[in-house]
Amino acid sequence: MAAAATEAFLDRALSPDNAAVPERLTAAMRHAALGAGKRLRPFLVIESARLLGLSGDGPVRAGAALECVHCYSLVHDDLPAMDDDDLRRGKPTVHRAFDEATAILAGDALLTMAFALLADPATDRDARIRAELVAGLAQAAGAAGMVGGQQLDLAAENQELAEEEIARLQAMKTGALFRYACEAGAIMGRASAEKRERLVAFGAAFGAIFQLADDLIDATGNPLSAGKATAKDAGRGKATFVARHGVSEARARLAGMVDDANALIAPFGKEGKVLSDAVRFAARREA
Amino acid sequence: MAAAATEAFLDRALSPDNAAVPERLTAAMRHAALGAGKRLRPFLVIESARLLGLSGDGPVRAGAALECVHCYSLVHDDLPAMDDDDLRRGKPTVHRAFDEATAILAGDALLTMAFALLADPATDRDARIRAELVAGLAQAAGAAGMVGGQQLDLAAENQELAEEEIARLQAMKTGALFRYACEAGAIMGRASAEKRERLVAFGAAFGAIFQLADDLIDATGNPLSAGKATAKDAGRGKATFVARHGVSEARARLAGMVDDANALIAPFGKEGKVLSDAVRFAARREA
Repeated sequence: MAAAATEAFLDRALSPDNAAVPERLTAAMRHAALGAGKRLRPFLVIESARLLGLSGDGPVRAGAALECVHCYSLVHDDLPAMDDDDLRRGKPTVHRAFDEATAILAGDALLTMAFALLADPATDRDARIRAELVAGLAQAAGAAGMVGGQQLDLAAENQELAEEEIARLQAMKTGALFRYACEAGAIMGRASAEKRERLVAFGAAFGAIFQLADDLIDATGNPLSAGKATAKDAGRGKATFVARHGVSEARARLAGMVDDANALIAPFGKEGKVLSDAVRFAARREA
Repeated sequence: MAAAATEAFLDRALSPDNAAVPERLTAAMRHAALGAGKRLRPFLVIESARLLGLSGDGPVRAGAALECVHCYSLVHDDLPAMDDDDLRRGKPTVHRAFDEATAILAGDALLTMAFALLADPATDRDARIRAELVAGLAQAAGAAGMVGGQQLDLAAENQELAEEEIARLQAMKTGALFRYACEAGAIMGRASAEKRERLVAFGAAFGAIFQLADDLIDATGNPLSAGKATAKDAGRGKATFVARHGVSEARARLAGMVDDANALIAPFGKEGKVLSDAVRFAARREA
């Protein structure tokens, strides 16, 4: 549901009929943002807001903004100067389908669009909420969040990191956006401080579970099934938790993390079941 | 004054003491944003606000945000996949001083930081103003503004553009940020609709004057004096107004544009002299 709503919203927001945007740029942005992806971050925004009694366009818009940031980061990460990937979600990456310059610009435009979506009164009538959403996304996506994590990841290719350094890298690179997804729902849903704290912690836990499951896929699964052309991380010998402690210890840790995440949303009662199921799904997709 | 205030603000905002940001990323962002540049866009924000009676930190912060966007655009434009420049403002470009991946990330981080600065309550106490600043910047910098203009510019390397297409390209690529600079000052200064309209038109005119003067420098001046390594645009045979109509017609047009721009701010009386002088400076730097 979240996925379909996000897809429909982005399809309209990136309409080829918008004459104000050069055709090729629209096409590259659509290639990056439409037609694939699990839409996990929008799902978390929408479900967190729903837990607080808020539904409607607002959370869909905020979720779509977050998805724009996620998609831009994939476009830039795939560039030859970064991970140099040819395939993404089973399709050619943007710089392969178009060209490198267009990929850089399409990423820049998607990032910029995210803030346009959040600042628009259609996202929330209250400007304080919109400004808070913008500030939170900029914090999560910027130099002290996702982009900073990507920078640490580049450096990690040339050096052995300590376990706490890996945890920091992952919390920044992938954790920050998951954390913000639940925070955005809490902000829009006018959560109490206590509920907001729980949701933010849940988002962070979700991100860590997703990451550990990802590392387990890399270690045990067929990388092609995840739509990746090559197992780059493994090839570069990245020191993930799985590589350090082995698959069975990682699986035990994952199970404990799932329990902790579920405990965080237990106070929401049966309304929390959707998020609870999502955690189990994120953990089990290794299978 | 605007330049010094902007430099001092960015120096603090990009402090190497901020342990939350990876050192190398901070260093690349500082390389991109500090120590050079005319700070024309911050100047326009600060002066437009001052014309409306507003001074203090707010306009400096908004100007610095706009400068972050300008600097990020230069970092990405200079990349090998784009203009492939080795020098910028007499220094090695970011991808030469660091590496290409770091340059991509530093640009991404500067763009993101711009929105963090605008959304911060320190920029304006009124969240409606902050949200409006964010929306305006995203519009000016995004797919229908600066990034879209850059995309049109890429395409222009392979085809002859009509004069109105060049005008559109330039209005998007460089005009949108200048226009927004004056609009940001008007927003923060709570301008009346009429004054806001005048300031926005002045910003657009300033951008067009700056661009035409730039084309005249390329056509007549020593490109090295502008800190550029090579006269790329001329080499690629871009069809600027100067190339189409010749230097003397371009100079006459420039003089007319200066008059029109000054007429726009004439109603502000002698307080408008600083902006008026700036227009003449922008037009005359060809000399």
